[in-house]
Amino acid sequence: MNNYTNNVQSSLPINFQTDDATPAWLNKADNAWQLTATTMVGMQSVPGLVILYGSMVKKKWAVNSAFMALYAFAAVLLCWVLWAHNMSFGTRLTPFMGRPGFAMTPSILSQYEGYFVPKADYVYFQFVFAAITVILLAGSLLGRMNFYAWMLFVPMWLTFSYSAGAFSIWASRGFLEKHIIDYAGGFVIHLSSGVAGFIAAYWVGPRQSHDRQHFPPNNIIHMLGGAGFLWLGWTGFNGGSPFAANEIASLAIINTHVCTATSILVWVSLDMIVYKKSSVIGAVQGMITGLVCITPGAGIVEPWAAVLMGASSGSIPWYTMMVLHKRSPLFQSVDDTLGVFHTHAVAGVLGGLLSGMFAKPNLLRMIKIVDLRMKEEDLDVGDDAVHGEEAYALWGDGEQTQASIRRHLRIPSICR
Amino acid sequence: MNNYTNNVQSSLPINFQTDDATPAWLNKADNAWQLTATTMVGMQSVPGLVILYGSMVKKKWAVNSAFMALYAFAAVLLCWVLWAHNMSFGTRLTPFMGRPGFAMTPSILSQYEGYFVPKADYVYFQFVFAAITVILLAGSLLGRMNFYAWMLFVPMWLTFSYSAGAFSIWASRGFLEKHIIDYAGGFVIHLSSGVAGFIAAYWVGPRQSHDRQHFPPNNIIHMLGGAGFLWLGWTGFNGGSPFAANEIASLAIINTHVCTATSILVWVSLDMIVYKKSSVIGAVQGMITGLVCITPGAGIVEPWAAVLMGASSGSIPWYTMMVLHKRSPLFQSVDDTLGVFHTHAVAGVLGGLLSGMFAKPNLLRMIKIVDLRMKEEDLDVGDDAVHGEEAYALWGDGEQTQASIRRHLRIPSICR
Amino acid sequence: MNNYTNNVQSSLPINFQTDDATPAWLNKADNAWQLTATTMVGMQSVPGLVILYGSMVKKKWAVNSAFMALYAFAAVLLCWVLWAHNMSFGTRLTPFMGRPGFAMTPSILSQYEGYFVPKADYVYFQFVFAAITVILLAGSLLGRMNFYAWMLFVPMWLTFSYSAGAFSIWASRGFLEKHIIDYAGGFVIHLSSGVAGFIAAYWVGPRQSHDRQHFPPNNIIHMLGGAGFLWLGWTGFNGGSPFAANEIASLAIINTHVCTATSILVWVSLDMIVYKKSSVIGAVQGMITGLVCITPGAGIVEPWAAVLMGASSGSIPWYTMMVLHKRSPLFQSVDDTLGVFHTHAVAGVLGGLLSGMFAKPNLLRMIKIVDLRMKEEDLDVGDDAVHGEEAYALWGDGEQTQASIRRHLRIPSICR
Repeated sequence: MNNYTNNVQSSLPINFQTDDATPAWLNKADNAWQLTATTMVGMQSVPGLVILYGSMVKKKWAVNSAFMALYAFAAVLLCWVLWAHNMSFGTRLTPFMGRPGFAMTPSILSQYEGYFVPKADYVYFQFVFAAITVILLAGSLLGRMNFYAWMLFVPMWLTFSYSAGAFSIWASRGFLEKHIIDYAGGFVIHLSSGVAGFIAAYWVGPRQSHDRQHFPPNNIIHMLGGAGFLWLGWTGFNGGSPFAANEIASLAIINTHVCTATSILVWVSLDMIVYKKSSVIGAVQGMITGLVCITPGAGIVEPWAAVLMGASSGSIPWYTMMVLHKRSPLFQSVDDTLGVFHTHAVAGVLGGLLSGMFAKPNLLRMIKIVDLRMKEEDLDVGDDAVHGEEAYALWGDGEQTQASIRRHLRIPSICR
Repeated sequence: MNNYTNNVQSSLPINFQTDDATPAWLNKADNAWQLTATTMVGMQSVPGLVILYGSMVKKKWAVNSAFMALYAFAAVLLCWVLWAHNMSFGTRLTPFMGRPGFAMTPSILSQYEGYFVPKADYVYFQFVFAAITVILLAGSLLGRMNFYAWMLFVPMWLTFSYSAGAFSIWASRGFLEKHIIDYAGGFVIHLSSGVAGFIAAYWVGPRQSHDRQHFPPNNIIHMLGGAGFLWLGWTGFNGGSPFAANEIASLAIINTHVCTATSILVWVSLDMIVYKKSSVIGAVQGMITGLVCITPGAGIVEPWAAVLMGASSGSIPWYTMMVLHKRSPLFQSVDDTLGVFHTHAVAGVLGGLLSGMFAKPNLLRMIKIVDLRMKEEDLDVGDDAVHGEEAYALWGDGEQTQASIRRHLRIPSICR
Repeated sequence: MNNYTNNVQSSLPINFQTDDATPAWLNKADNAWQLTATTMVGMQSVPGLVILYGSMVKKKWAVNSAFMALYAFAAVLLCWVLWAHNMSFGTRLTPFMGRPGFAMTPSILSQYEGYFVPKADYVYFQFVFAAITVILLAGSLLGRMNFYAWMLFVPMWLTFSYSAGAFSIWASRGFLEKHIIDYAGGFVIHLSSGVAGFIAAYWVGPRQSHDRQHFPPNNIIHMLGGAGFLWLGWTGFNGGSPFAANEIASLAIINTHVCTATSILVWVSLDMIVYKKSSVIGAVQGMITGLVCITPGAGIVEPWAAVLMGASSGSIPWYTMMVLHKRSPLFQSVDDTLGVFHTHAVAGVLGGLLSGMFAKPNLLRMIKIVDLRMKEEDLDVGDDAVHGEEAYALWGDGEQTQASIRRHLRIPSICR
């Protein structure tokens, strides 16, 4: 190919010529798109899910929840380049696992398989996928997990569960066709995070009972900000999967947004019909199920199907979450804080094929190492006990504010 | 063209060859840019305006205002692909309207007119334009509109007003030249949203009088976050309009930012000269007028003109909003919550040609269907009555916080 | 070249042909990437640092701090195109300064030196670099600087310090090699902002003593949102530096993120070992030092080096900030509000070469003009005195909230 390429180069205008940093196999447009799309996915987690978790939970858990997401993003990246990328996509060690190894070798600048981008782009893209999976899983565990246990859980689950799932499904390219595999993020990521989160929630135990009964989002507007990143960032999630700025990217993106919009509208409508209130938290749930549901098929379904998929993802997970959940002893016995099982596992299965669960979380290994659950006295206090920080410091700084609180509270002067 | 193209293909290096997802007419660089720019515009609305509205209003309306924006984004997208895109850009039905039809047919993957991107990109880009128009209009109606009325208003206004305006101006390509049309977003979008918002505000009636007198932003830092998205996201708004990663995109982007920066500085200076305070809310108003003003000309004016346009947009709408507004009985009689008339209609006219108002809102049709205005008892309570949600839940969760509020309030022990 | 190019054009497929807005030297993929990357850098400042500053300081300074950042972004842009870009990158006036002049001439659409993008892209990219430098410097001055003094300081420091530094280092291309210069943002930007901030903090004087002792972030979740933009936006900072969507961009991006992740993990680990708490503010400090440290080398170091650089940036600035700072009378005597000296100057030196400090802040010129320091009575009140605005308006709007505060405070009925 080199000879051929060199011959052709001489007939290209100067702005398409190659140089040391632009080898003949590199398509700059694909590279520009891939780096952009991957960064969008990164922003789904940081700041997206960091904000979403930090504002969707009760105030006393805001810092802890946000920090779980931020820590996971950093920890997954380091583990990813040190060993987990090669375990997920490298040469075969066992049928379920690649050989661990350092991904940041000089080969990172060589062409990645049949794509026109360097391997560095692939490592970067697969990292943001792995990171968001772990962070989505965290949604089941908010409000009581020992932070040290989480610090150990992230690399272990990445290594023994996610990498095994990724290698079995993606690298082996066995029992699912190539095109489906390209959009199979729905399986590895959402089913994986949904089921693993549910099982982990069982092992960690429930939140304190009064937290479980009363767990209002501490800042709904902030929560919507985080959710907005999640939605628009999904443009990169599904648009980046073909690793080329081609038509599949265009199709996947519009399908993604159409399915999500439909799902929101259906979920909100059901809330209004059944509960007579249009809940914006409901809208966010419908948004998430729509995004999850379209993912396995975004680049491969006919455009009209996106509308139907959105109608399903706005109704079936709504039913399991709002109706079935309250009736089922199983769901009641496990405290899945944000309902990740419904938004990811149910919607993921719905959106993809029903061909089984392939990523099996293995939590048992780490139980003896460190307490999964935070100490009971820390559960009372929350953030301040764990991180020495509170989410808000709005009181008492500035005399005018103090006066205005008192005035607004209409506390009589005897009490001032 | 196919023969010609095929001949050429054989002399291209492999990374420029075509495949099933890369037809010969597709320019991957244009496609990468278009998908990126459109996503930036999407982020102006979600999370941008969702956050901006949710924090710029009085606390009791935070959820409602943010939800109006989020709902509109979703509803516009579904309507857009089901019928409104074709009404705006499809084949002619009447001189003012295209034939309604489903936009998500397989033709969505064919080349769009003379551009080197698929029609899917065009539908996606036009959707984010339509969505932000409706959401900007909502700024006039915050703090009292019946949410159910808003749910009906969005599809109806999109269908009978926006689509008619878009078809008349853009699709017919009649009385404005091609290059002006490329940057005529200023007319359809800003004049449309500014005037329609003002008229709708009249029909819906004013906010409660004590809300109108005392309507502080509940979270100014959050508001600046939303405004920041609006500004930087405008990169895609004006940079995406040529549908190509060409020089016009580069010019439009730097013109946009220079005009906006100038506008902010002029507005803040006027505030400081006249009111002796530098208000950050004023800075945001100057930002919005700068963005709106440059839009009709971003890609077609000489670069130095951007500075002059910024000086105008920072002063003339400042005058109509800060001086004229208070003196004019007309402005006093209509409660345009965020002053959208000044920031969009005045600035839009200023920035573009004065050739008339083409998008006529038609609110009358829906008045019989549902009350436009929320019930009076709900106006007292706000979010909690409408959505069963409050924006913040900062009080009372975590014993330490309770203690620290009391301590900071210095409530004597008899009252604790 | 023109003849050559024209000959070649005829053998290109139609989607690579040129038109008025697509000259033969333009590479659309490079252009798409450059505009995207630059916008990412812009978002580091607006909304990134606007949010970060507005939430990382004590509540009474939230608006003021956010506004300092927003103002600087706008003021730098106007000054940049009016005179400072040409002083930094134009024709030589003295050995340390280019000839001031308007950058927005029609030549802005011509090819920029050897790159395949127009000069407009270069002006835009260099602006966002200059803006973030001034805004990072502001971090040293939060909580007491006279806002009017800041309004004068920004253009003066940009003109006499930043432009001189930029011209000496970048334009002269003298004592640092070409490739190092490409990634020398670490020097001009971070050493410059870190040292200048420290010196400016000395001249402006410290915060009020009770502010200095008690300065909790008013909203940690919001702070994490701003920090998230800073991190992910750095993708454009280092990825945009080659001005091409080539392999260097890919390498720089993954190096950037790997170094930063490592730095966070090391900083948090040190906090946990020494202070027994995992502080999320510490995580943000480690994030910033990681980003700063990799910048001089992002596109030119072997990938494995990024891990080692992250280990250094997570430990050495941690030591100077957490240990040395408390022991050193020099550090104690200067009130560097956010510790910019450690996060930028120390990390910048660490990451780059030790070949000297080239950007010398010159604050003395402006001291006679206006008080640098805010009036003492304004220091007591904060935002409300300076801008007539308070960051939050959460109290007293909506009857239910008042009742619920009282209920949660458990104020006895005699006091209600």
